[in-house]
Amino acid sequence: MENLSRKLILITNDDSVDAPGIHHLAECVRSLGDVYVVAPAHPHSGQSAAITVSSPLRINELPPRTEGVRLFTVNGTPVDCVKLALAAILPRRPDIIFAGINHGSNAGVNVTYSGTMGAVLEGCLEGIPSVGFSLLHHSMKADFTLSTAFVAAIAAEIIEKGLPQGVCLNVNIPARVLPEGIKVCRAARGRWTDNYQRYLDPQGIPFYMLSGRFINDEPDADDTDEYWLSRRYVTVVPVAADQTAVAAIKSLAGRFSECADS
Amino acid sequence: MENLSRKLILITNDDSVDAPGIHHLAECVRSLGDVYVVAPAHPHSGQSAAITVSSPLRINELPPRTEGVRLFTVNGTPVDCVKLALAAILPRRPDIIFAGINHGSNAGVNVTYSGTMGAVLEGCLEGIPSVGFSLLHHSMKADFTLSTAFVAAIAAEIIEKGLPQGVCLNVNIPARVLPEGIKVCRAARGRWTDNYQRYLDPQGIPFYMLSGRFINDEPDADDTDEYWLSRRYVTVVPVAADQTAVAAIKSLAGRFSECADS
Repeated sequence: MENLSRKLILITNDDSVDAPGIHHLAECVRSLGDVYVVAPAHPHSGQSAAITVSSPLRINELPPRTEGVRLFTVNGTPVDCVKLALAAILPRRPDIIFAGINHGSNAGVNVTYSGTMGAVLEGCLEGIPSVGFSLLHHSMKADFTLSTAFVAAIAAEIIEKGLPQGVCLNVNIPARVLPEGIKVCRAARGRWTDNYQRYLDPQGIPFYMLSGRFINDEPDADDTDEYWLSRRYVTVVPVAADQTAVAAIKSLAGRFSECADS
Repeated sequence: MENLSRKLILITNDDSVDAPGIHHLAECVRSLGDVYVVAPAHPHSGQSAAITVSSPLRINELPPRTEGVRLFTVNGTPVDCVKLALAAILPRRPDIIFAGINHGSNAGVNVTYSGTMGAVLEGCLEGIPSVGFSLLHHSMKADFTLSTAFVAAIAAEIIEKGLPQGVCLNVNIPARVLPEGIKVCRAARGRWTDNYQRYLDPQGIPFYMLSGRFINDEPDADDTDEYWLSRRYVTVVPVAADQTAVAAIKSLAGRFSECADS
């Protein structure tokens, strides 16, 4: 029986139902409300805000892996999980959406490609306070325990006070250390380089596998996530659901008023 | 032989190499520079900025379909096409990236899910002026000729004068009419509703297909793309590559400084 006075919390991720991070997140927040986990059946790292547009999606309920937390899978992307949870799984509209804990960094430019943050943006576009959590450790054996108190504290703060309309959060957590504290900051500017390794298949035909490393274009900027993560802080980057570059509208308007006469 | 005094233009899309829109775009801009088309081998609508993280990617050169335009496919997403074009296909760094012409709207909230705009964001993150074009008509038989002059004029303007750093463009074009002109504006706020149709498979097990319709939350706002598209204007929305909600950093900082002591 649903307890309507308690908050309804939806949890999803992009590493799939089999990634330890999502169950650790459920454990961190289960005392804060009624928790549903709706996770991709298979890994969807790097899926950004992708949606499944023309294949059938199926919902599967699995036995709980966290006490009191119902567990579902969807054979789609993180955004599909949020959309289907709202449309067909949850007993009512959730009060909060959490995604993660991702196995790997979503700091800097990674926010663009992140399936974790795709799910978070979807929640934000729905008007629901939404937060993504990522640990800077790719391994499925990553140790999440050092961050437990921080994740629980951030989650409790958002559940209690919500977020500004149109803003969601991208939280990144340093690996293998007890964090020094929390810094609210912006995403560091940078880019990936050496993006691909080239191979030859047995027929001698080339193929490519994504590779590369992140170059921080502003390593000394002390208001960025990469700066504070390297100094053992948990970083909280507010992310806008509306990507319009409002400041550019006016200058561009003059240029295109001429085009319009062409 | 490459003509180094001419601009190098990369064109991609999300509807695949077989969609007429990409070849129409190549035709529109081929007099403006040396044009390479690098398109997904198969449709990738709704793929946002998704990247292929652990499967092999292959590049295929096909016979040209537009005079003087080299044509390649990649068995991946629109962002994969941009990344591999830069890493392994183009003779040098492109001066401009165009994506589209998409078969269907990328106005309003659709920018989040759009594979077309995923490719454009990737170009922008690389520091290359990048523009996505979309026609508000899903059909593969859509008529692109009424928009030719507008697409060519916008493309020429960007090739000549570039774009502000960190800003790319999302251009949408009304269908079946000669546009009235061009408006630079912001993305209309809204959301999709009635997202899924539910079916029963032959075994009686339910599955879901994406459906829904867009609800414009601000139909009377005369500074939005949806407003002007419905009035037969081409809309140009500047989009920020950096999604940080800078205005929210200060107010959130106070809230999380307390968390840090927990």
